[in-house]
Amino acid sequence: MSGRGVLCFSRPPRVAAAGCVGGRKEAEGPLAEGFDALVEDTRCGQPSWELAESALARRALDIALEKARLAPENLDAALGGDLQNQCTALAYAMRGVNAPFVGLYNACATMAQGLGLAAALVSGGFLHRAAALASSHFCAAERQFRTPLGYGGKRTPTAQWTVTGAGAVVLAPGGPGLPADGAPVHIAGAAFGRVVDAGVTDITNMGAAMAPAAWDTIARYLAATGRTPAGLDAIFTGDLGLVGSRLLVRLAQLDGAALENHRDCGLLIYDRTRQAVGAGGSGAGCSACALCAHILPGLAAGRWRRVLLVSTGALMSQLTAQQGQSIPAVAHLVELAAGTSGQEGGSQ
Amino acid sequence: MSGRGVLCFSRPPRVAAAGCVGGRKEAEGPLAEGFDALVEDTRCGQPSWELAESALARRALDIALEKARLAPENLDAALGGDLQNQCTALAYAMRGVNAPFVGLYNACATMAQGLGLAAALVSGGFLHRAAALASSHFCAAERQFRTPLGYGGKRTPTAQWTVTGAGAVVLAPGGPGLPADGAPVHIAGAAFGRVVDAGVTDITNMGAAMAPAAWDTIARYLAATGRTPAGLDAIFTGDLGLVGSRLLVRLAQLDGAALENHRDCGLLIYDRTRQAVGAGGSGAGCSACALCAHILPGLAAGRWRRVLLVSTGALMSQLTAQQGQSIPAVAHLVELAAGTSGQEGGSQ
Repeated sequence: MSGRGVLCFSRPPRVAAAGCVGGRKEAEGPLAEGFDALVEDTRCGQPSWELAESALARRALDIALEKARLAPENLDAALGGDLQNQCTALAYAMRGVNAPFVGLYNACATMAQGLGLAAALVSGGFLHRAAALASSHFCAAERQFRTPLGYGGKRTPTAQWTVTGAGAVVLAPGGPGLPADGAPVHIAGAAFGRVVDAGVTDITNMGAAMAPAAWDTIARYLAATGRTPAGLDAIFTGDLGLVGSRLLVRLAQLDGAALENHRDCGLLIYDRTRQAVGAGGSGAGCSACALCAHILPGLAAGRWRRVLLVSTGALMSQLTAQQGQSIPAVAHLVELAAGTSGQEGGSQ
Repeated sequence: MSGRGVLCFSRPPRVAAAGCVGGRKEAEGPLAEGFDALVEDTRCGQPSWELAESALARRALDIALEKARLAPENLDAALGGDLQNQCTALAYAMRGVNAPFVGLYNACATMAQGLGLAAALVSGGFLHRAAALASSHFCAAERQFRTPLGYGGKRTPTAQWTVTGAGAVVLAPGGPGLPADGAPVHIAGAAFGRVVDAGVTDITNMGAAMAPAAWDTIARYLAATGRTPAGLDAIFTGDLGLVGSRLLVRLAQLDGAALENHRDCGLLIYDRTRQAVGAGGSGAGCSACALCAHILPGLAAGRWRRVLLVSTGALMSQLTAQQGQSIPAVAHLVELAAGTSGQEGGSQ
């Protein structure tokens, strides 16, 4: 085990505000109440699904900025990404935003990746206010990665349902003496993951492809920080779904770790017994929305004191899948803790 | 003008080493001698152009690590991206590399973006050794963005030629007392750009789409740091080509600035009079290769003391172009300076 790519913040940034927007299916799911907005028209009045996703992302960012009482021109940078080819959802969303944009792509691992980078830039004093955001849209993803909706393609039980939604989090410098104008939550640490390819070639089973990457990053973070699963109130993975979640717990067991407090955003955002979502939710918006609608409010309300968010990404494209390549995966994580004080943070 | 997203490093990281690999057309260009390797077989023995690009990226990283005398498992993170859908060139390249991977996407702005992020993470003490890398491949890009090679599509004079190549730079903490085991160059500052959409819809004229973004970032950096174009030995843009370069100089003139020391990597890497490359080179590998094959060696040799690298990216996709959308663009920059000491670096 190695501490490479593991960041512990001696000056942990605080979450100034968060905003998230979901669609119709998310409105019917268990986390509905936590969303800031739920849109009935998932086309958002736009001429394409792709621009509809841009509109969702922009709205999530606007909500977060408004809650943080921050004008876009006072945002030092927005770091984020999405699943569209060339990440056009966020590129087009940022056209009207007067703030620097740092585009990311690690598929559904984007939210924790952006939070980790933003936290480092704020903690290091390079940026004063930074936002991390991610989005996905079921209809844009279906026609890009699988088949156009009108085709009515049959789904396998292991397949997951791409979340229509976007989440944005604004970070600000932490520490004592600051006004408590946001949720009392800070980013205590982060870890960037390695690319892990377990040889899975079934693009309708991305949970299986991503589980080994999730465990790789979690195990490295625990080893580097001395944390234990029992010392964390919850470990939230991004979108492993039912299949990937079971594999993750099993992989941890094989390494002698009990992940009893593991939860998966893909299983939290929908109710599989009521909603036809296959093995659960997925998409870059999945962990972004679960973070903003469920995890941050839970930390702010004292439900948990210290949790990990482990966003997981499957890094194939439709082309590499057609070329018969296996699916590389990556997982990035952030440690979120209740309270604004960073006294306990250590160095790397 | 605003200093948002502008980073000045009080502890400027140094360039520990760089590596770059090019293809046949790059071997015939003016920068050929600066490449570490030039491959005759641009398929690199791989079954697809996409995997060939992964092989180029991996080789550039391996060369940089070897020059830095660093094993991959001692690299804290690699930050990078490419132009393939879902950025698969680097995702697949990183499969065999035992180091964390932070995937980026800002099209051809990737190299400066990755360098700026890596420099901040190293300067802030979050990572000890970090690599930034970017790649592109003419054949992979043609069939993805335009038409398959076999189609023999006609090119317009404003169109640019995607570089087949990859560049990688390893950064390490700077400051006095460190062994001078690499090129004596440090990263003095960086700026992340805003998304600028000038309304250009012609995807065969990306130079025009990107020039306004380039000037936006350069102007903001100059204003925030107090630097002047005359105080810099050169300002290298990423891949504006002939059309975009002329527009950039004109945009600067309109703001009262004379960019006499402007050079464009897309015009340096090929000889337009001898090589049929339209308006010049482009691609995420363009500024990456020009940086490693030309700019860093020039700084190390004393040819320049202080330069900007301004990588420029056009953020459309084939789909958004087909949907009639205009082309958003972004430019990120880093300031590179000769010498390893960071005494003169100021705060943000």
